[in-house]
Amino acid sequence: MRDPVAVLVTRGDRVESRHLGRLAVADGRGRLLAAIGDTDEAVFPRSAIKPFQALPLVESGALDASGCDAADLALACASHNGEEIHISRVLAWLERAGLTEGDLRCGGHPPLLPAADAARLKADRPVTPVFNNCSGKHAGMLVTARALGAPIESYLERDHPVQRRVDDALREITGIDPLPVPGTDGCGVPSWPIPLDALARAAARLAMPKGLPPSRAAALTRIGDAMVAHPEMVAGSGRLCSALMRAAPWIVAKTGAEGVYLAGNRRNGHGMALKAVDGATRAAEAMLLASMSRLGWLDGVEPGALARFGEKPILNVAGAKVGRILVELAFLDGLA
Amino acid sequence: MRDPVAVLVTRGDRVESRHLGRLAVADGRGRLLAAIGDTDEAVFPRSAIKPFQALPLVESGALDASGCDAADLALACASHNGEEIHISRVLAWLERAGLTEGDLRCGGHPPLLPAADAARLKADRPVTPVFNNCSGKHAGMLVTARALGAPIESYLERDHPVQRRVDDALREITGIDPLPVPGTDGCGVPSWPIPLDALARAAARLAMPKGLPPSRAAALTRIGDAMVAHPEMVAGSGRLCSALMRAAPWIVAKTGAEGVYLAGNRRNGHGMALKAVDGATRAAEAMLLASMSRLGWLDGVEPGALARFGEKPILNVAGAKVGRILVELAFLDGLA
Repeated sequence: MRDPVAVLVTRGDRVESRHLGRLAVADGRGRLLAAIGDTDEAVFPRSAIKPFQALPLVESGALDASGCDAADLALACASHNGEEIHISRVLAWLERAGLTEGDLRCGGHPPLLPAADAARLKADRPVTPVFNNCSGKHAGMLVTARALGAPIESYLERDHPVQRRVDDALREITGIDPLPVPGTDGCGVPSWPIPLDALARAAARLAMPKGLPPSRAAALTRIGDAMVAHPEMVAGSGRLCSALMRAAPWIVAKTGAEGVYLAGNRRNGHGMALKAVDGATRAAEAMLLASMSRLGWLDGVEPGALARFGEKPILNVAGAKVGRILVELAFLDGLA
Repeated sequence: MRDPVAVLVTRGDRVESRHLGRLAVADGRGRLLAAIGDTDEAVFPRSAIKPFQALPLVESGALDASGCDAADLALACASHNGEEIHISRVLAWLERAGLTEGDLRCGGHPPLLPAADAARLKADRPVTPVFNNCSGKHAGMLVTARALGAPIESYLERDHPVQRRVDDALREITGIDPLPVPGTDGCGVPSWPIPLDALARAAARLAMPKGLPPSRAAALTRIGDAMVAHPEMVAGSGRLCSALMRAAPWIVAKTGAEGVYLAGNRRNGHGMALKAVDGATRAAEAMLLASMSRLGWLDGVEPGALARFGEKPILNVAGAKVGRILVELAFLDGLA
């Protein structure tokens, strides 16, 4: 099956650019409810599986042992903006656990949010690993390593006890066993390629755990609860993950680099996984919102609450409307 | 004809993302030498046609009347980084012409180069229109308006004498007459949709003007000379346009938003125009360099001079090699 055209970017009266996309919708038992494009081909979910990468943190008892609350757990699932609310919380968590920022192996990049980077520059603060959008996940992996009595310095390695527990959790939740050989993610952790239909099932289980042992189901529920209770921790100002879970707190959603999104609907226990084939965020966001809307997942959301995301006008620098991002109807027909 | 897969982005041992592309190569008489994808479909060239938008500036005498040198002319063709060398020159030019930054109608955005934006923040300088990557083009249009005795405040409008002269120049150089109804560019000027094969012919004429009246040919030559003599003005630090014209001063190249590139080869008078269908810069840059290399346009370039662009390793935040950007061979076969 060809990847269908998913998102059109217009200028004036013409299409300027086009994105292709794939999307799967499944229930928690793994039944595929809708599929657009080759959904059995593996994609790298990247940061979209952070909620599952946080399972060892919860299941090992490390979360509670390190004196964390639900906001810390949400931050362990985050691709955060590097705002003060994110970095101060990661640093406090590390300190409580007797760790330092120097233990983070993710490397540093400037805060994702321009205003947060401006604040960093104004304060003459160098770019350090805590600003990395993944620093919450890494803090969680470090305290998990400590709780397991495993080495701290090698926590990124594929055969480290923390990563082996992530691998185990992913195999059970996605139903892909064994998982293919992983690549390496932007922050250094293993990044497993997984088919979109299996990721949709995983997203469904994040929304409403089914077919899992009770302790794992409880851990997943706790993770989903933390994300929807603290959406600002999962991404931050101006970001779709945060705005979406604030506007529709029955949705658990997480983005991943290169145009990936996972979302679970706690109302019906269905999950969605999608990938913009070219990796574009604007396409993934538009596909996500248009598809959720078509499926009724956004019924009850305050009109306009998500207007700055997805299908929206394109403004030029001076603020004039010069084009539009829109999702092709033939793409959405696959969800009918 | 389907748009062929042009650029693959890999992670580990797999393809993570894919870009489609179109490309045309032509000579200055308009003969199509190679075509990949639908090259007779119009695309918005965006800033890639800035060298042609600068023709009224040269042809009207406004460039010389405003005391400009070749570096100013290169800046009029630029999508610049907002570095000090760019903004100081635009401001000086406006002042010489009795204009102010307030006359620029392009709107302001933070400098494209993060280090230039950091310098702006450190200096507590607000974002103003001079930082807009198009401010050199707008300065050029303003002084052209003044030289023509035309209104200053309406220079962006489609029927303003400056834009009518741009339209005239584009019709002659591309051979598309009349041009379709324009959209509006990011900086507010008209943005005409033009087929890639016509844009390739225009790029060829920028490299080596043929089939044009002598005065227009001389103006185009002067523009191409200015760009290759001052590549740092056309873009700036870390940017492909600048690095390419420095490494291969027989190439005249200009990028445009949404994955467009035009390049002319002054050795053989051929021109190339390409578009990444999804608008991705990484895809456009990889297509450009791989195609120019395949055609021999880069013969004699110092090895490694362009290694940070195009087909290259993807490093993660900590600096480890985790993937690769590469151009699909089947795409390049279209150029054989």
